Amino acid sequence: MTRERLYLYDTTLRDGQQTQGVQFSTPEKQAIAETLDKLGLDYIEGGWPGANPTDSAFFDAAPETRATMTAFGMTKRAGRSAENDDILAAVLNAGTKAVCLVGKTHDFHVETALGVTLEENTENIARSIEHIVKQGREALFDAEHFFDGYKSNPDYALETLKAALDAGARWIVLCDTNGGTLPTEIFTITSAVIAAGIPGERLGIHTHNDTENAVAGSLAAVDAGARQIQGTLNGLGERCGNANLTSLIPTLLLKQPYASLYETGITEEALTTLTMASRQLDEILNRVPMKQAAYVGASAFAHKAGLHASAILKDPSTYEHIDPTAVGNARVIPMSNQAGQSNLRRRLAEAGLEVEPGDPALARILDEIKEREDRGYTYDSAQASFELLARRELGRLPDFFEVKRYKVTVERRKNKYDKMVSLSEAVVVVKIDGEKKLSVSESMDELGSDRGPVNALAKALAKDLGKYQSAIDDMRLVDFKVRITQGGTEAVTRVIIDSEDGSGRRWSTVGVSPNIVDASFEALLDAIAWKLLRDA
Amino acid sequence: MTRERLYLYDTTLRDGQQTQGVQFSTPEKQAIAETLDKLGLDYIEGGWPGANPTDSAFFDAAPETRATMTAFGMTKRAGRSAENDDILAAVLNAGTKAVCLVGKTHDFHVETALGVTLEENTENIARSIEHIVKQGREALFDAEHFFDGYKSNPDYALETLKAALDAGARWIVLCDTNGGTLPTEIFTITSAVIAAGIPGERLGIHTHNDTENAVAGSLAAVDAGARQIQGTLNGLGERCGNANLTSLIPTLLLKQPYASLYETGITEEALTTLTMASRQLDEILNRVPMKQAAYVGASAFAHKAGLHASAILKDPSTYEHIDPTAVGNARVIPMSNQAGQSNLRRRLAEAGLEVEPGDPALARILDEIKEREDRGYTYDSAQASFELLARRELGRLPDFFEVKRYKVTVERRKNKYDKMVSLSEAVVVVKIDGEKKLSVSESMDELGSDRGPVNALAKALAKDLGKYQSAIDDMRLVDFKVRITQGGTEAVTRVIIDSEDGSGRRWSTVGVSPNIVDASFEALLDAIAWKLLRDA
Repeated sequence: MTRERLYLYDTTLRDGQQTQGVQFSTPEKQAIAETLDKLGLDYIEGGWPGANPTDSAFFDAAPETRATMTAFGMTKRAGRSAENDDILAAVLNAGTKAVCLVGKTHDFHVETALGVTLEENTENIARSIEHIVKQGREALFDAEHFFDGYKSNPDYALETLKAALDAGARWIVLCDTNGGTLPTEIFTITSAVIAAGIPGERLGIHTHNDTENAVAGSLAAVDAGARQIQGTLNGLGERCGNANLTSLIPTLLLKQPYASLYETGITEEALTTLTMASRQLDEILNRVPMKQAAYVGASAFAHKAGLHASAILKDPSTYEHIDPTAVGNARVIPMSNQAGQSNLRRRLAEAGLEVEPGDPALARILDEIKEREDRGYTYDSAQASFELLARRELGRLPDFFEVKRYKVTVERRKNKYDKMVSLSEAVVVVKIDGEKKLSVSESMDELGSDRGPVNALAKALAKDLGKYQSAIDDMRLVDFKVRITQGGTEAVTRVIIDSEDGSGRRWSTVGVSPNIVDASFEALLDAIAWKLLRDA
Repeated sequence: MTRERLYLYDTTLRDGQQTQGVQFSTPEKQAIAETLDKLGLDYIEGGWPGANPTDSAFFDAAPETRATMTAFGMTKRAGRSAENDDILAAVLNAGTKAVCLVGKTHDFHVETALGVTLEENTENIARSIEHIVKQGREALFDAEHFFDGYKSNPDYALETLKAALDAGARWIVLCDTNGGTLPTEIFTITSAVIAAGIPGERLGIHTHNDTENAVAGSLAAVDAGARQIQGTLNGLGERCGNANLTSLIPTLLLKQPYASLYETGITEEALTTLTMASRQLDEILNRVPMKQAAYVGASAFAHKAGLHASAILKDPSTYEHIDPTAVGNARVIPMSNQAGQSNLRRRLAEAGLEVEPGDPALARILDEIKEREDRGYTYDSAQASFELLARRELGRLPDFFEVKRYKVTVERRKNKYDKMVSLSEAVVVVKIDGEKKLSVSESMDELGSDRGPVNALAKALAKDLGKYQSAIDDMRLVDFKVRITQGGTEAVTRVIIDSEDGSGRRWSTVGVSPNIVDASFEALLDAIAWKLLRDA
């Protein structure tokens, strides 16, 4: 069976830039365009030339892409010709192969927001599209507020589409600008548009996620016959974001009936780079990747429930709808109070600890984890502490050293320039092979800034561990997370510390206490113990 | 027209707990149950009694709810009677009004994962449901993997549903356990189930977000005739999460055709608490609320595009599909433009500070907020600190007292019983009307437990404020939240403190520093200053 071609149009660089808190620089836009192109998208909308300096600079030095680079703009204003509209001229001057112009299709907006007659608006659309086509460019018409417009005045809304089509637009893009149209309505209205004579092969869909239905709305339009989907990577975009291409792409390529009915420009091989592309965008934006993101999230194939985890071990298809490697993601079986013994054995094996099935230590370890999780510990993300706990129960944890006591002082007072400054100091006393060692450190960093009591404590603890010192010298604290697990005066603090060593190895440990310094100290001790297990 | 009743079933406390990194404590479960009940959900699934200590403890002291409290479990195992299944007994012992049992409906899972015959499995379902009904409880059957099962063997999948129905189940819940079924398929299969004789009024839908279609899948099932929706607040749940009730509820109440066709247990008034409920859950989990969340996200009604922002000022319906206040959310127009200053004036007026339009202090306050937010402060949730900052710029903040210095010590050592114990002590020196006052406190609570350095500092600071003492005597710290705003060695700590006084008034303050004790101290000082503003 011949599959029909579906076209994917990315607007991360234009509508994605409308995300609150997102502001791309020109090099960032270039890097993202390259990622999108490698992925195999058909169109890359680079921005609105002339609307801001970044977008103009991007088009001045746009990367060479296989994808059709597209400039965004709006239809000419009333009272001047397309040739004499300076805003439109700036868009055309970007020299892109395709140009996408937004225009009004909702009678209310034409009259209220634009303040022109319906006829003038239709005329503006037709003349603007004609002007683009005359210059040998591919023209796209972005039908703003189309679904709301169709509900208000179907005849007029359709008239604007036909004007664009007759003027030579390659694509008519139905936009649900306010994001309020539900998928079934998108299906019904898109079907009506096709029945009214706009061919599906010329129709695109542009949805927003204001009801969390942008992906479903895009699929509904394809079901009705539309053949272009607009969206953004990671669902960036104005308000709640645009249709998330990171979710749509694998659905179109891997799920039925789409995989059998349609083909896209994205290869199976390119699909395996999707998770990386998604994380790279977050990296550029300095955002924490959404763990629960469909297909590409770190939790997308994490099996926490005990029943699920044990079935997965027998056959992954029991609890996975696709193979995670198809999108470049991976399966995760975390420890949790719901995990069974088989899950536990698998986790222990990963840590190099082979334990026979039925070993009574397994039940003890699970009980200990349950009891601790109830007190606020978490082992999902603190793998190293999990291993130490298991080794303790299995009798496979050497006594490296003993902490006799510690003392931390935080002081804040005026310095000689009458400025309030703070300084922390920590004293740690450990016993190694019967020998007592006292270490002291303060919290000042190289720039003379106070980094607080935990910093001082970490430095004092790592200052002199005698015969173990060489094993921990290349170790450093790379992240520190604090969570209060109960509010109010009963607050219990959970600290998770990520450590790294010279070989690039990273490990996470956890500590829990009502006293934040104690909780941190516990996590620090685990971090050192785990490192000593590996290297001492 | 009479609207049909739709039932909402919340599984935040059970399936939501399957979210990677989420581990509720018993008090947290209680607080969430109360929020869900206030919202007006019909069912609250509290957990799996007997599966872990937290869930058992929750049911032992479950809050009184208007909603039907439901315990989750699984159908009895083969080879024993329902009466003699200890796992099932533990579920029933929780004494809830309703019990929801998961059972297999997919032939492949019955034979592979359970290793029993298809007949035995059907029998297990029937006998388990019967057993619950015999005890006078409402029974729900959670049809695991139903959609995949139906595709594999429709006759057998339907047979399991009929067995549960005939045994007296009030609800048959169609579960898309692996999250891979797309909305159109959910519609088709749910319709087929109804055509096969399972009434829609007895059918529920339980979807997962693995293709980002969980919300649309739930709506598709309702379109087909199902009358119960299962989901979680904020879309928590295994892997990519469950159907997000926070998105579904406003769609069902505010959007067509749902608003006209159905009624739920949620009132218009309760709907206005939705944003708060969503944020409260994030607060408990110490998660950063998702800005782009549909309806309740901080960006859901943020209008960044210049064209949009100016049209919104003329008529909000131009770029908003619903009124944000209907869900307790608010419109956001970036501070940077003209609208920013009028927003600020409105916020100041709310704090009792009337400022003339064009007052140069407005621009200074906006600059100061922006500069501080860049450093990690947040004023969205720290209204009292916002007011203090504004008063400082406006010259309307009295100098109540001056902190000269403080010193906090945390010590951990062995006590006389050779047990490691910790103790914190704080000394604070303040100057009031030229008079120096030294106060000291330690961190021990009434039960002799160490509550850590911040507790000691708070007590010392509030111990002797001279003439202001009477104004702060009824003040207490009710919540304490810590977030690390940058990872690694550059970590900056943000502390938010919630305080309360005898009149029940609550206020929040913020402090930021690389030193967690300093950040806490800053927030404590703000908390006292705000109270003195009101009462001194």
